[in-house]
Amino acid sequence: MSILKLAVGIDIGGTKTKVGLVNEQGESLVRTFFRTKEYPDIDDFIARIIEAIGELKIQLGQESKLIGIGIGAPNASSKKGTIENAANLLWKGSVPLVEKLRAQIDLPIKIMNDASAAALGEMLFGNAKGMKDFLVITLGTGLGSGIVANGQLIEGHLGFAGELGHFDLTVGDGRFTGLGVAGGLEAYVSATGLKRTIMYLLSKYMDDSVFRNIAYNDLHGEDITAAAENGDPIAIKAFEYTGRILGYALANFAVFTQPEAIFLLGGLTGSGKWLFEPANKYMEKHLLEIYRGKIKLMRSGMHGKNAAIAGAASLIWVDQKAHDDRE
Amino acid sequence: MSILKLAVGIDIGGTKTKVGLVNEQGESLVRTFFRTKEYPDIDDFIARIIEAIGELKIQLGQESKLIGIGIGAPNASSKKGTIENAANLLWKGSVPLVEKLRAQIDLPIKIMNDASAAALGEMLFGNAKGMKDFLVITLGTGLGSGIVANGQLIEGHLGFAGELGHFDLTVGDGRFTGLGVAGGLEAYVSATGLKRTIMYLLSKYMDDSVFRNIAYNDLHGEDITAAAENGDPIAIKAFEYTGRILGYALANFAVFTQPEAIFLLGGLTGSGKWLFEPANKYMEKHLLEIYRGKIKLMRSGMHGKNAAIAGAASLIWVDQKAHDDRE
Repeated sequence: MSILKLAVGIDIGGTKTKVGLVNEQGESLVRTFFRTKEYPDIDDFIARIIEAIGELKIQLGQESKLIGIGIGAPNASSKKGTIENAANLLWKGSVPLVEKLRAQIDLPIKIMNDASAAALGEMLFGNAKGMKDFLVITLGTGLGSGIVANGQLIEGHLGFAGELGHFDLTVGDGRFTGLGVAGGLEAYVSATGLKRTIMYLLSKYMDDSVFRNIAYNDLHGEDITAAAENGDPIAIKAFEYTGRILGYALANFAVFTQPEAIFLLGGLTGSGKWLFEPANKYMEKHLLEIYRGKIKLMRSGMHGKNAAIAGAASLIWVDQKAHDDRE
Repeated sequence: MSILKLAVGIDIGGTKTKVGLVNEQGESLVRTFFRTKEYPDIDDFIARIIEAIGELKIQLGQESKLIGIGIGAPNASSKKGTIENAANLLWKGSVPLVEKLRAQIDLPIKIMNDASAAALGEMLFGNAKGMKDFLVITLGTGLGSGIVANGQLIEGHLGFAGELGHFDLTVGDGRFTGLGVAGGLEAYVSATGLKRTIMYLLSKYMDDSVFRNIAYNDLHGEDITAAAENGDPIAIKAFEYTGRILGYALANFAVFTQPEAIFLLGGLTGSGKWLFEPANKYMEKHLLEIYRGKIKLMRSGMHGKNAAIAGAASLIWVDQKAHDDRE
């Protein structure tokens, strides 16, 4: 019997760092996490990663061979192996994460923007199996994206392709980011964007709404979905507003790579039809005629499958599979 | 001595169809053209193409081997080998050009959107040699585009990627196309767009201008450049307006593929600094910080080199070079 091959998948987020051992089917057989901010020194963070991998191998309790380490992180450059000036991480400047990790462990190591890793995960393990042209859009605190075209993940000249959260529809005249500069799409279409839209609509309309009694910091995406289900007019308008902006943006995205499908991933997709229906309606309305009716807007197939860990591990599995195909 | 290898390059335009024999350096050694609209029957058009190739071989006057035929055309699907519903061509519906040509001549035949062919030409013969991530934007009657990422031309799910002329900044509230639907970027940034902008500025401002004595149909791009050189305030404002919209669009394009360079090709680029300076200024202004100062905005290297024919021929040469590299 051949030995079990596993890839390490690491998802570095502003709050948690998740580590898992992922098999060829994209299943996280064992996983753990720790708080990213407890390791303000990058060398301590690297040591904690090594430790976590060791713990997971013990927890797994069977013989296995690690084939590599894939890392998904914000502001990661796949080409330089670095994380650069990530707003939500404590390490500043350009952090040579791959180099530092390689000095500690002798395995193939790859790093990528977390949403790009999610796109590879979707291709290997999710709903994009067999597709060569698609987008994955992650809707969390912000909006991330991964672009696959011609069957390959688009990396960009310096490894920073696919920053669709910063696609700006407003000629610099829209909502601001936390840094005080004009924000892009993610200031509207994300968990945060939806909350901001509630505020905007409370300013614009005089409808009664449960949200007139809830402060901004107490607002949660699930509550907005629940309110829409209950007929709250501000919640319903907020999804229509968000879906319209998303749909219009998706129609513009289509002129680049003509994707076969666009997958939405992340907490906000839990709102289901409230988000998907207006997004699809306005996408179709604004699509160039040659694309109309030919782009599927779907929920990611990675929900409930530890998408972030599996996506990170797919950076390793995609090479392994290409290698296996050649043999 | 080895026999001279040549690729046939065919550029099908609304007015002219140009045919040339192109060597490995991208030079059109011999070329001819005929009027596209004289062949409303596609079979007659195919026969005329075959005839033109024969004429060119005689005109060349030396032994040579044709290695394939590359075709650039509007609304061409590289994947289906067709031209589909091209507004400026007489053949309606889906025209199986590659299939029909292959029935007459036993050579590799490829077809592609003309601007995508121009992008391949730029990579093989122009200023994009050695680059893996760049855009080519053709500014003629409309705005065409070709996207190269990861070293490959992006084709799209059904072969219609790279329609950046239809990128729409206006949420469907901008200038109309000839078909009465809301147009995209090309309604602003193209030879036609610049003329429309002159009309708009004559409506908006009361400045004196040579254009108050020239009818829309008598306006030409070169005259607008000449007027700007002479200090005409409407001409100067027109370039600022056009460059601002182009620069803003380019900043949005960057978030997709993070190109190393963006090349502009076509008659409108003859206006030089009048177009490039505001375009570059507003691109930099709107670029996400991680991209700032890292994207070259340049004129195509294919000017004066029969860019359309050479671009079409590059569809064949790109495969030949890949083949040679493997051997």
